[in-house]
Amino acid sequence: MRKAQVAIIAASDSDLPIIGDAAAILEEFGIPYEITISSAHRSPQRTVLYVSKAYRNGVKIIIAAASLAAHLAGVIAAHFPLPVIGVPLKGGALSGVDALYATVQMPPGIPVATVAINGAKNAGLLAVQILATSDKSLEKKLIQYKKGLAKKVEEKALLLSKKGWKSFSEKR
Amino acid sequence: MRKAQVAIIAASDSDLPIIGDAAAILEEFGIPYEITISSAHRSPQRTVLYVSKAYRNGVKIIIAAASLAAHLAGVIAAHFPLPVIGVPLKGGALSGVDALYATVQMPPGIPVATVAINGAKNAGLLAVQILATSDKSLEKKLIQYKKGLAKKVEEKALLLSKKGWKSFSEKR
Amino acid sequence: MRKAQVAIIAASDSDLPIIGDAAAILEEFGIPYEITISSAHRSPQRTVLYVSKAYRNGVKIIIAAASLAAHLAGVIAAHFPLPVIGVPLKGGALSGVDALYATVQMPPGIPVATVAINGAKNAGLLAVQILATSDKSLEKKLIQYKKGLAKKVEEKALLLSKKGWKSFSEKR
Amino acid sequence: MRKAQVAIIAASDSDLPIIGDAAAILEEFGIPYEITISSAHRSPQRTVLYVSKAYRNGVKIIIAAASLAAHLAGVIAAHFPLPVIGVPLKGGALSGVDALYATVQMPPGIPVATVAINGAKNAGLLAVQILATSDKSLEKKLIQYKKGLAKKVEEKALLLSKKGWKSFSEKR
Amino acid sequence: MRKAQVAIIAASDSDLPIIGDAAAILEEFGIPYEITISSAHRSPQRTVLYVSKAYRNGVKIIIAAASLAAHLAGVIAAHFPLPVIGVPLKGGALSGVDALYATVQMPPGIPVATVAINGAKNAGLLAVQILATSDKSLEKKLIQYKKGLAKKVEEKALLLSKKGWKSFSEKR
Amino acid sequence: MRKAQVAIIAASDSDLPIIGDAAAILEEFGIPYEITISSAHRSPQRTVLYVSKAYRNGVKIIIAAASLAAHLAGVIAAHFPLPVIGVPLKGGALSGVDALYATVQMPPGIPVATVAINGAKNAGLLAVQILATSDKSLEKKLIQYKKGLAKKVEEKALLLSKKGWKSFSEKR
Amino acid sequence: MRKAQVAIIAASDSDLPIIGDAAAILEEFGIPYEITISSAHRSPQRTVLYVSKAYRNGVKIIIAAASLAAHLAGVIAAHFPLPVIGVPLKGGALSGVDALYATVQMPPGIPVATVAINGAKNAGLLAVQILATSDKSLEKKLIQYKKGLAKKVEEKALLLSKKGWKSFSEKR
Amino acid sequence: MRKAQVAIIAASDSDLPIIGDAAAILEEFGIPYEITISSAHRSPQRTVLYVSKAYRNGVKIIIAAASLAAHLAGVIAAHFPLPVIGVPLKGGALSGVDALYATVQMPPGIPVATVAINGAKNAGLLAVQILATSDKSLEKKLIQYKKGLAKKVEEKALLLSKKGWKSFSEKR
Repeated sequence: MRKAQVAIIAASDSDLPIIGDAAAILEEFGIPYEITISSAHRSPQRTVLYVSKAYRNGVKIIIAAASLAAHLAGVIAAHFPLPVIGVPLKGGALSGVDALYATVQMPPGIPVATVAINGAKNAGLLAVQILATSDKSLEKKLIQYKKGLAKKVEEKALLLSKKGWKSFSEKR
Repeated sequence: MRKAQVAIIAASDSDLPIIGDAAAILEEFGIPYEITISSAHRSPQRTVLYVSKAYRNGVKIIIAAASLAAHLAGVIAAHFPLPVIGVPLKGGALSGVDALYATVQMPPGIPVATVAINGAKNAGLLAVQILATSDKSLEKKLIQYKKGLAKKVEEKALLLSKKGWKSFSEKR
Repeated sequence: MRKAQVAIIAASDSDLPIIGDAAAILEEFGIPYEITISSAHRSPQRTVLYVSKAYRNGVKIIIAAASLAAHLAGVIAAHFPLPVIGVPLKGGALSGVDALYATVQMPPGIPVATVAINGAKNAGLLAVQILATSDKSLEKKLIQYKKGLAKKVEEKALLLSKKGWKSFSEKR
Repeated sequence: MRKAQVAIIAASDSDLPIIGDAAAILEEFGIPYEITISSAHRSPQRTVLYVSKAYRNGVKIIIAAASLAAHLAGVIAAHFPLPVIGVPLKGGALSGVDALYATVQMPPGIPVATVAINGAKNAGLLAVQILATSDKSLEKKLIQYKKGLAKKVEEKALLLSKKGWKSFSEKR
Repeated sequence: MRKAQVAIIAASDSDLPIIGDAAAILEEFGIPYEITISSAHRSPQRTVLYVSKAYRNGVKIIIAAASLAAHLAGVIAAHFPLPVIGVPLKGGALSGVDALYATVQMPPGIPVATVAINGAKNAGLLAVQILATSDKSLEKKLIQYKKGLAKKVEEKALLLSKKGWKSFSEKR
Repeated sequence: MRKAQVAIIAASDSDLPIIGDAAAILEEFGIPYEITISSAHRSPQRTVLYVSKAYRNGVKIIIAAASLAAHLAGVIAAHFPLPVIGVPLKGGALSGVDALYATVQMPPGIPVATVAINGAKNAGLLAVQILATSDKSLEKKLIQYKKGLAKKVEEKALLLSKKGWKSFSEKR
Repeated sequence: MRKAQVAIIAASDSDLPIIGDAAAILEEFGIPYEITISSAHRSPQRTVLYVSKAYRNGVKIIIAAASLAAHLAGVIAAHFPLPVIGVPLKGGALSGVDALYATVQMPPGIPVATVAINGAKNAGLLAVQILATSDKSLEKKLIQYKKGLAKKVEEKALLLSKKGWKSFSEKR
Repeated sequence: MRKAQVAIIAASDSDLPIIGDAAAILEEFGIPYEITISSAHRSPQRTVLYVSKAYRNGVKIIIAAASLAAHLAGVIAAHFPLPVIGVPLKGGALSGVDALYATVQMPPGIPVATVAINGAKNAGLLAVQILATSDKSLEKKLIQYKKGLAKKVEEKALLLSKKGWKSFSEKR
């Protein structure tokens, strides 16, 4: 088994169904990763220990997902010298605006690479892109992935032009 | 010198002019306190060590002030078992809404007692109120303080009724 | 029966299912409390009388929960010299942002210790923390509580590492 | 001297320069009024006593202006059976959105007639309109006032068409 | 049949279920009223004609309810010299914040007395309060109404103290 | 078959049920149009090529609909010299505020004519209005359309006055 | 003198310095226009009369600019069958968000083509684009204008590459 | 001269003073970079050509900064397979919230690593962190940088403890 290059940390077990999208992308691109649960508030020591251990074991990127006053990514970034990707999660009364602000508005010196609210898939892709900066085969896969996205759009456009918008919409 | 009962922690030295209002109130009520600078992101170890030490030394309340993705109060609350008061600071493009959300929207299990944006004075008063729950002389001072607030309002109202609103407004 | 140390006031009977979380925490920590319904707008005299009576009877902390233009905590804080904890409730078209602002943005001189929107559990915990500033046995229980939170995170992380994220997510 | 029909209450002496616009309109329409300072939080008893006394003395409308967690109008409305007009004031980090929400989002049963942030002039006019529902001469003055507004627009439009927009803008 | 003193105008037939609360309050207080549908945008002439006719027929207050870019109350206020009460309605993607801003942020000279989003009941009560400024019997009814609100709170508080919060919450 | 004068571009096939309202209006007014799917992000080349081709084929107006960071209308406006109408779509955690801001806040030099969130019907009507600036028969149809809107309001108002608001509301 | 094809209406004379940007663009493209001041609220009859007259005189597009509860564009759109372009203006406590929502969130049936807050220049350009749908020479000018924008960017990029970012920034 | 590994693209020359912070960090860490101006809207072809050329020349990360409807980072991400870092800039009436939403809320498949509003320094640091995932010497420098941040905090804390908060605040 290859050593994990990416670690995914969810603040709560209830976040797994969303953050799973990041894991799925890493699997699709063949990136070894590890995934765990740790909270900046409920298990602060464990979070710091986990981050230190992951760093020693060669993890190069950490993806952190949290909702509400989402401190997890920032706390990890305070201890981890390499890229931290933050995924603000929708949850609670403010629909994730609180998590977005708490993740992205980091002070100078400690960046968190923030993706969209619930944007776990893009967090995974961003990790792949980062690794691809020094991995030509991964870079090629990303180019293929981009072409695949464009191709799917074209196929749907073709289907739409065949069926007309009314029946196309109804089918959904 | 009496042992500090309250510790005030500002995330940055630029926050001192605002957070000083909390110190001023503590002095007014004769509460021994200590004040320092420590960042959840730039000096995470120092923050945790400081909190542990303060706790061992008998500090009973921590006031934490930060702007932007204001994680400081939450991070302290993760390590400190007694009350943590959070002061979201105005700063940056979002005028402190980011700091407010990042301070108040704490998940279940780890409360932060949040006051208004830049509400350092009220943070100090809240600390006094907390200590007053087991200190009758402090409680009496608080009742006097409240009476003083009402008296000032009455004095201004009297002045207004004497001068009329036009000259009263001009005087300002 | 011991005298209540905390009073919980809900602005409306419809708020009970949420604010009950505060009561449950107080019970868990063995804090005697009382709970009632009173509105800053519909029963203003009753609210003031209730607060005065509670204060005379030795109540040390009041938890107030309201939605919309949530004035309850502020009105209580105007009459009560000891800590008032405000719980802004989600409700109406603005999802609790109105209640949050109306609770937290208190003017200098009259603090309200505000917790998250619908954060009744944390309101209860904050009351326990306040009482623990002068009660060593309560302080110990809080430290145990914090350890319990961390332990639950670890158990879930262990379960996740055993099952993998896919089956772990499906189980939910 | 005629008895006051309208009472204007500002939460703070610093609000006088804004709320003076309401007084000026009342004077323009010849409405006897009184104006004072009282805070829902710092002088709660005085506020309630003042409202009761004003009501006994025949005041028919109260205009209340406050900033931040603007509870003043709501607290007055809880005690006053006739119309209360609320003026949310710009102030603090949230530019008056907090005051607007805290003033307008009143629960069913206790309305506050809210005008724009800093809309003191309109608060005065609304009071005049309310009194005009039972005062034909006041109603006529309001119709004249409306015509005056339209006339001023026409005069400016005429000036613009004469000068052209460039020199018209420069003149300002 | 007595002449209508209040006119209720809904911007769309779909708003009737909400705005009906205003009509219900007027009926409860015995105020003759009329209710119609007219849009500032889809039937602008009808709106202006209706307002003029209502004014000639002795209508003293107009309640206007609209959602989205809610111009109805403002357009009516431009033509009606007496009080206009605006009810911003929840609807569309912005949950009524758009309607609130479009109703309350009127420019100087043309006030709209704005109530909460979907606050139709309070719009009705405000109309009653306005009429009560010159109708002693209505004023008495309002005082009774206020007492009724307080009494209901007390009854619920009594029930809560009897049952305890757990069974009280369950019953709902 | 007449050449398309309007092109409708949806960023995703899932947007078709909403954007179909624009197509329906164009059909109602007899405007030849084409409709396709293309994404500013997933199929950027296709988008630019499609726009160029549409322009060469005589398309005079493009309607673009997208959600989230809705760049589609802006990207099209960068390449198309004639009017681009943007329809921000509700979707994701921010309910379309993100799409609204990303569509309407275009920098000087590259306008996008923005309609309401999910306002596809108005996008279609705006396209008709634009074409009507040089087509008298279309202009007449628009005047008829406007009259039809007013007539429907009147019919509903008549129905309301016949049935009363209670039974009218129930019927819905 | 050629007949005006575009009418610009500002809600207040204080809006002229902003809305002048629209006039300047129309002049740059040689479009005859007229400009006036009229308010939806203070001069409602004048506004409707002006719009009717402009329409009879051959005006094809109206640009309307207003701040706060910006009803002007919507009110005009209710009476004008051809395109109405709305410019929400920054002003008051809410920085133009109120004006943006009040302008763009129009109900189905009555579109307003909304541009950015204070986006008067783009309002002018959009009017040119609309006229260009039936005017080939205008279309050519627009293509030239677009090329000019790109050229200016290239020139600045060239200057930047020559000077380096430090001296380039200092020069500003 | 070494080949650029990072390209910085500002949407406008007026953004240089802010985005210069990213360049300064890259210089501090010895990363070869290039910097230019290109707009997604005013120079769309140049933007795409520049991105393609940069990619062919070995650029591994692009930092894009824009204000308002900030499409630049998203448009670049649509064409560039490796990491794109977006810097939303404060500007215009919405203070950068528009730019933040337009940059971060990217749809699945096309991530943009977003930093805080005006967070150019963190954009530079994030680029360094990304390159450090495959460059041990860079990683060491980052660890030193982190230590430096902590050290500065400690120095300021020491100074504060020496001077006391009053004179410390005054000095600023």
